[in-house]
Amino acid sequence: MAQYSAELDGVFLALADPTRRAVVHRLGQGPASVGDLAREAAMTLPSFMKHVRTLESNGLIRTAKSGRVRTCELNRERFTVVEDWLEEQRRLWEAGADRLDRFVTGAEERNDV
Amino acid sequence: MAQYSAELDGVFLALADPTRRAVVHRLGQGPASVGDLAREAAMTLPSFMKHVRTLESNGLIRTAKSGRVRTCELNRERFTVVEDWLEEQRRLWEAGADRLDRFVTGAEERNDV
Repeated sequence: MAQYSAELDGVFLALADPTRRAVVHRLGQGPASVGDLAREAAMTLPSFMKHVRTLESNGLIRTAKSGRVRTCELNRERFTVVEDWLEEQRRLWEAGADRLDRFVTGAEERNDV
Repeated sequence: MAQYSAELDGVFLALADPTRRAVVHRLGQGPASVGDLAREAAMTLPSFMKHVRTLESNGLIRTAKSGRVRTCELNRERFTVVEDWLEEQRRLWEAGADRLDRFVTGAEERNDV
C-alpha cells in the first residue's frame, strides 16, 4: 500500500505539467527521439531532459540510446496505476448510491405496511 | 486549451499527495467535517487546512461553514477532467493500433495477389 501510494504520488506529479503531458500525447502516436521532442516543445535540450527524466523515473516512458540518439517510448501499462485508483473511487461512490437506494426502497416498503 | 491545461495541472498536483487522496477516498463515502478529517489524518488543523485548501481551490471538494463546523463534500464531476484526458490518450493509442492493423492487413492482401 505504501509503495502503491508512492507510485501514485510520482505518476500524478509527472502528469501535472503541460510539457510532460504533451510528450505523453506525442508518444501516444509512436516513439520519438529526445531531440525531436525537445524541438517540438521549443525547449533547450538540458531543460527538456529534466522532463524526460521525470517521466522515465516515474515509469511513464522508457528511453534507449542508440549511437548518439536517445529514443523515447510510452509505457502505456503505467497509466493503469492512475486509472485503477480513479476506478476504485467510482466504485466507492456507486456502492454509496446502492446503499442509499436500498435504504430508500426499504423505507418505502416499510411505509407500505 | 490553455485553461484546460491549467486545470489539469492543478487537479493532477492535488492528487499527487497521499493525505489528499485519503481525503478524497473518505469523502467518497459521504461528507465530513474538517475536524474529523484532520483527526483521521492524524494532523494538526493548520497543517491539514493546507490540504483542504489545495483540494478546494482545484475544485475536487467543496466546503461550507455552519456555525463553527466546516463540512467538506466531494465534487465528483471534477474527476472527469482527469478521466477525459486519460480517455483521450487511450483513443490515440487505439487509433494507432487501428492504423497498424490496416497496414498489416493491406500488406497481407498485397502479398495474396
